[in-house]
Amino acid sequence: MLTRIDHVGIACRDLEEKIAFYAGTFGLQVVSRELHQDQGIREAMLQVADGPAGASYVQLLEPLGPDTTVGRFIARRGEGLHHVGYGVTDISAALAEIGAAGARLLDARPRHGSMGASIAFLHPAGIGGVLTELVQAPDRG
Amino acid sequence: MLTRIDHVGIACRDLEEKIAFYAGTFGLQVVSRELHQDQGIREAMLQVADGPAGASYVQLLEPLGPDTTVGRFIARRGEGLHHVGYGVTDISAALAEIGAAGARLLDARPRHGSMGASIAFLHPAGIGGVLTELVQAPDRG
Repeated sequence: MLTRIDHVGIACRDLEEKIAFYAGTFGLQVVSRELHQDQGIREAMLQVADGPAGASYVQLLEPLGPDTTVGRFIARRGEGLHHVGYGVTDISAALAEIGAAGARLLDARPRHGSMGASIAFLHPAGIGGVLTELVQAPDRG
Repeated sequence: MLTRIDHVGIACRDLEEKIAFYAGTFGLQVVSRELHQDQGIREAMLQVADGPAGASYVQLLEPLGPDTTVGRFIARRGEGLHHVGYGVTDISAALAEIGAAGARLLDARPRHGSMGASIAFLHPAGIGGVLTELVQAPDRG
């Protein structure tokens, strides 16, 4: 069902500073920048590698304010790993299968994510505290 | 320098329970189980995908006791994402390059990791709270 680790999502206070760090230290380049008002974040995708099942990314997330999901995460736990995203080829089928297996879904239906992908989040409580995202895109499925 | 996301490391209280969850919910299979007394953990590697640069894994980590790195992590923050590991082709060269860029190294020299890999950890303080691991192996470089 899972085709790859699509990305790790990292919550940070200062997006530009972290982009500069990842570029300067690991040589990673930004391939996309987006603003998601609905998620309360501005983000950058830095490509780690490409493969037959799609590329993998470091996703840097800066909250748009303290009263956002990522803002509260940073206030509570500090900057750091926020979630992991796995690639799937058919997100609706994957959600149905995962829901039937008993996992709790935050998104019962796919919604729009980064870089034109369809995404859905699973509840961390059912997955040992790990906020888990499914990602399907034509070129990243 | 980074060839892929090698793995996400997930701290959990009960390894067998989490293995059963990841198998039952996502269909992931255990490809390796190891005990690392020096790291204070027992672990399982579940393969997510394979690619030209090597496979990617979910690494489930159960602490051997409360007075271990992962035991203290769980006591402080609960179960959840513990670290991310990136593949490199030459870990000694990568460490030299990363150190020269100013990042703080937890391991100045590579040591033995899971599945015969050479690994080294970077200090999370320099990387926005993300405990970051480099992984090199003949078949996972």
